[in-house]
Amino acid sequence: MQTLLLGPDAVEEHAAMPAVIEAVADAFAADARGETIMPAKSYIDLPQYNGDFRSMPAYVAAETWDAAAVKWVNVHTDNPADHDLPTVLGTLIYSDPETAFPLSVMDGTVLTRLRTGAAAAVATDHLAVADADSLGLVGAGTQAYTQLEAIAEVRDIKTVVVADRSEERQRAFVDASDDRFDVRAGSIEDAAGCDVLSTITPVESPIVEREWLGERTHVNAIGADAAGKHEHDDRTLLDAKLVIDDYEQCTHSGEINVPWSEGVLTDDDLYGELGDIVAGTLEGRTDGDGLTVFDSTGLAIQDVAAAHVVYEHASEAGDGTGFSLVGTDAT
Amino acid sequence: MQTLLLGPDAVEEHAAMPAVIEAVADAFAADARGETIMPAKSYIDLPQYNGDFRSMPAYVAAETWDAAAVKWVNVHTDNPADHDLPTVLGTLIYSDPETAFPLSVMDGTVLTRLRTGAAAAVATDHLAVADADSLGLVGAGTQAYTQLEAIAEVRDIKTVVVADRSEERQRAFVDASDDRFDVRAGSIEDAAGCDVLSTITPVESPIVEREWLGERTHVNAIGADAAGKHEHDDRTLLDAKLVIDDYEQCTHSGEINVPWSEGVLTDDDLYGELGDIVAGTLEGRTDGDGLTVFDSTGLAIQDVAAAHVVYEHASEAGDGTGFSLVGTDAT
Repeated sequence: MQTLLLGPDAVEEHAAMPAVIEAVADAFAADARGETIMPAKSYIDLPQYNGDFRSMPAYVAAETWDAAAVKWVNVHTDNPADHDLPTVLGTLIYSDPETAFPLSVMDGTVLTRLRTGAAAAVATDHLAVADADSLGLVGAGTQAYTQLEAIAEVRDIKTVVVADRSEERQRAFVDASDDRFDVRAGSIEDAAGCDVLSTITPVESPIVEREWLGERTHVNAIGADAAGKHEHDDRTLLDAKLVIDDYEQCTHSGEINVPWSEGVLTDDDLYGELGDIVAGTLEGRTDGDGLTVFDSTGLAIQDVAAAHVVYEHASEAGDGTGFSLVGTDAT
Repeated sequence: MQTLLLGPDAVEEHAAMPAVIEAVADAFAADARGETIMPAKSYIDLPQYNGDFRSMPAYVAAETWDAAAVKWVNVHTDNPADHDLPTVLGTLIYSDPETAFPLSVMDGTVLTRLRTGAAAAVATDHLAVADADSLGLVGAGTQAYTQLEAIAEVRDIKTVVVADRSEERQRAFVDASDDRFDVRAGSIEDAAGCDVLSTITPVESPIVEREWLGERTHVNAIGADAAGKHEHDDRTLLDAKLVIDDYEQCTHSGEINVPWSEGVLTDDDLYGELGDIVAGTLEGRTDGDGLTVFDSTGLAIQDVAAAHVVYEHASEAGDGTGFSLVGTDAT
């Protein structure tokens, strides 16, 4: 019995975005039904290396599949400059929950990028206006490409406005996307007027003003992933129908963490969790809604869902490299 | 840049017991100095499969090395009967703490077996009488072999008495070990009279009576690893110089968990943690000591230490299989 090894290219190849979006939606719904197990992330802080490790185990029992995995991932800010390595290097062990056999060990970095885009797509599907056709992107890094790819699966996006401090990154994004979309470089204010806005920056001081947003814009707040980070005006969060991915994670490290910890925003300002909307126990956008915001911190159940798609597709295709990683002698 | 894949045979080959004992001792000492980070184990309980997963991340800064790893391991009791698979299937990701690059993915089952033996050896080295030459073993499963191998590295063991409910297992143990030791099958009482006793059974009701132990026997209580399990008479634990590996783990799932939760045994009955003895801030056995007991639950820092040995030796030997598991493009 062998474990299937899947590097970044194999993960990319076998993670078709529509399938990942569907699996991530399944995982959110399972979570709302209480059919997931997701212990809190464990952190190992290493200030001497300006980095940390996070261990993210989870189990998902979706309606048609179940799976368990642990993702071991990090943030080492000095990696690009000092070691010519990415800031984030993820590895995931994907296991059969019935026997615990490690079915696959796979790259967790591409996987994280894809499942993050997929969650924004799930939120956008339930919260953006039905005829949304413009997408604003603040931050033109790797995740911006994935946001566009994912969101274009759930809305008929025609126009894209991309803002970034770096003109080079902005231009690269435009060049890479203008064959499929009417895409242009613009200011944050330009991007914020779109029907859907995804913000993907690590800022610790808000950069998107309330007034810049369209009346019925849906915002995916992706950037904040640690205490102290936030991209949006408190007034945006207070005025919006505010949906979170997970209460613990969002209040500690999501877009809402700063105003929540300051008491500016309270539990009463939260509309609910995305899972409840996907499961149908809470309404998504209704006709009367104006602004909507999805605070995405990224859940271990999303990784399990995306890994499920990758493993199943790679297995069916006979792709990947088999390796006898663990002993299977029952005695 | 590739990740080194090491299956069970490679782990076995590159985990020379003296080196593992030394590294595990280093890890215990580092823990006592506050130079480890070990979040609590995360559990995923799956009663529908009569199993669970545990995620065990840790970082160790020993004096001459440092390393980080996560072990993903399980207990699925029905595996041998229902799936012809082992009850426990461990996988470990071993990472460079400076960059988080996953240096190795390795079998975690052999590794667990070895580091568990090594911890008993470290405890025996500090707590058994210096001239201990007899070892009793209660339970003749795989870990019994490892206990003997490890403890024989720290004491000049000549005589071994092995007890087990299964005569077949007992006989197999004797046959496998009688070329190096004067080994015989015996009762639990026979085994308990030895200078060192290691108990390695999953019982929930004590099987080793206080009276059976020698006056200065050192006991390694290995078996208990979950709430409700204990192998030893409460009087043994109360009479002994009682050393634990970790307060949280031992009070919840170690040999002491039952009497501690019943209030029969209190914090005042604990002598201290093994790490403090290894670090030299607490004395091991002294001339006046009679019984000593080491309550071993198994720590994630032991896994990191053993994985460090395996990775370093395998790398030096040019062994293992390289695989491009994660992307290393810094952009």
